[in-house]
Amino acid sequence: MIVFYLSGNRVFSTDKNAIDGLHNNRHYGKLVNGKVFLSLLEAAYLVERGKIEVRDGKRRLTLEEVMKLGREEDELFDAKYLVYKDLRDRGYTVKSGLKFGSHFRVYRRGMDEHSQWLVWVVPENKTIAPNDITARVRVAHGVRKEMIMAVVDDDGDIVYYKIEWTKF
Amino acid sequence: MIVFYLSGNRVFSTDKNAIDGLHNNRHYGKLVNGKVFLSLLEAAYLVERGKIEVRDGKRRLTLEEVMKLGREEDELFDAKYLVYKDLRDRGYTVKSGLKFGSHFRVYRRGMDEHSQWLVWVVPENKTIAPNDITARVRVAHGVRKEMIMAVVDDDGDIVYYKIEWTKF
Amino acid sequence: MIVFYLSGNRVFSTDKNAIDGLHNNRHYGKLVNGKVFLSLLEAAYLVERGKIEVRDGKRRLTLEEVMKLGREEDELFDAKYLVYKDLRDRGYTVKSGLKFGSHFRVYRRGMDEHSQWLVWVVPENKTIAPNDITARVRVAHGVRKEMIMAVVDDDGDIVYYKIEWTKF
Amino acid sequence: MIVFYLSGNRVFSTDKNAIDGLHNNRHYGKLVNGKVFLSLLEAAYLVERGKIEVRDGKRRLTLEEVMKLGREEDELFDAKYLVYKDLRDRGYTVKSGLKFGSHFRVYRRGMDEHSQWLVWVVPENKTIAPNDITARVRVAHGVRKEMIMAVVDDDGDIVYYKIEWTKF
Repeated sequence: MIVFYLSGNRVFSTDKNAIDGLHNNRHYGKLVNGKVFLSLLEAAYLVERGKIEVRDGKRRLTLEEVMKLGREEDELFDAKYLVYKDLRDRGYTVKSGLKFGSHFRVYRRGMDEHSQWLVWVVPENKTIAPNDITARVRVAHGVRKEMIMAVVDDDGDIVYYKIEWTKF
Repeated sequence: MIVFYLSGNRVFSTDKNAIDGLHNNRHYGKLVNGKVFLSLLEAAYLVERGKIEVRDGKRRLTLEEVMKLGREEDELFDAKYLVYKDLRDRGYTVKSGLKFGSHFRVYRRGMDEHSQWLVWVVPENKTIAPNDITARVRVAHGVRKEMIMAVVDDDGDIVYYKIEWTKF
Repeated sequence: MIVFYLSGNRVFSTDKNAIDGLHNNRHYGKLVNGKVFLSLLEAAYLVERGKIEVRDGKRRLTLEEVMKLGREEDELFDAKYLVYKDLRDRGYTVKSGLKFGSHFRVYRRGMDEHSQWLVWVVPENKTIAPNDITARVRVAHGVRKEMIMAVVDDDGDIVYYKIEWTKF
Repeated sequence: MIVFYLSGNRVFSTDKNAIDGLHNNRHYGKLVNGKVFLSLLEAAYLVERGKIEVRDGKRRLTLEEVMKLGREEDELFDAKYLVYKDLRDRGYTVKSGLKFGSHFRVYRRGMDEHSQWLVWVVPENKTIAPNDITARVRVAHGVRKEMIMAVVDDDGDIVYYKIEWTKF
């Protein structure tokens, strides 16, 4: 079990296994000055999978505590977590899509190629404006990725819709 | 110039050119007892293209007058007109998509084959529920057509989005 | 009384009775890694029925508090809750109908067979476009389910309408 | 050709064929003091079918003129006319449904039995309130008829939806 320490809204580790196993091989987190930093989404996922533990000082945090921290700074944290988990469980590499105005960019497996998808997470009950869609499709189109709307329903199931700019 | 006469919220003509040219060849309107009836959408388009003129009794109506009639009974008339016009200008055949829960069903050219697209018109400033989208995608999926959301912005520009159910 | 813990917009429990009784037998929630997760709709219902209690950390939440959380993320929460409750009270199994463009899919009892109904919740004072109806009827037709519109009035009473495509 | 005379928003005839053929056998209009009175909808239909002619004093009115009169007092005249015509063409007997809050009551053939359907006409583009539906279904239920919503699309095609009160 690799130990990570809470640091603001991220967790970090200097453990070799964190660097080689999680970051280099599996593309979790970001390597800065010999430390692997994970987002709370990544941390929660790896806690749930039993790969890491997260400590706040000496105290070990439960999965629920990690998720609670995530929710405090992101009201979509739970919906995003379900999608993140679903994609990671299927073997995809999932990174933040912030730069592209989406929630995730998703790679087929490793990160050798460009990411192929931009994923935008929408809870079943949230109404959306057409511009929410058009902006994201525009970006995806510009960088030759596919824009995916991941709708999370009340049961926690996810349905994926590919949306693309089309010309008649 | 083929003459059509206003008849409530439609216009009609018994002109041979209306029957052969517009209806039989180009699939405009509906033929009922030797008369071609056009919707106000179709009429406005053909007036704008200079193919027909619409008379209310003896008075010739301007395009604006035809459109005004359209708006009176359909708050989406302008948005739908822009999309209708754009699709017709590109050579497609466009008919009502009501039965499929969309605004238009669109045929590649003639109506020999099944329509290929279902087009749902959404003005930029209208919010939508995810299930408004999922319902229409599901219909399209079931009948093997493509579901297109046509977003009309405040400048009257249209962007088309193909939305389809996808699996990761 | 089975204890569930609030986790964002869901609640979860690892209690055996939650897994066997609520999930396996009665088809509540979703089982993920040995935890039963319920939506706030399900949680509110089971709190009201006195089957579970929901805790936020150590504090026990009232039904009203659970519902308040639900409303925060779903403007239709109350209308949907009334319908959900009514259907569960009659012994039906109720799950999200998102994939079919409706709010609920409803099973006669267990989930052995396909769901038989798609339920679309409409508050009394919401106006609807005919194609909102025709889209959902078409979906139901395509998957051989019945399309039900559940109209919730201002007093919280529900009337169900079955809508189907018919030929004269 | 049976001659009818315009009288306000109706037309009437004292012709034997009007009384026997149209009224007694085919259930058109209303017999009052030896005169058959037709609504403008009925009159327009019979003019279009070539069964009658309508005169305003000595002047013979065209179908279009009859319809124009109809529109002046009923903005839904055209949509209703299309539905009326569709049902009559299929051999049904169609009478006003006003008493039941609908547009038409429809009999299988003659009027020996009770009417079986109440038909409510809705143009594709008009938004509706749930109460528009609930009131009409309520009435239909109370008198053991079927409530049919006839949606008239922009092409003048009609799709029929049966709506009924259902209990779970």
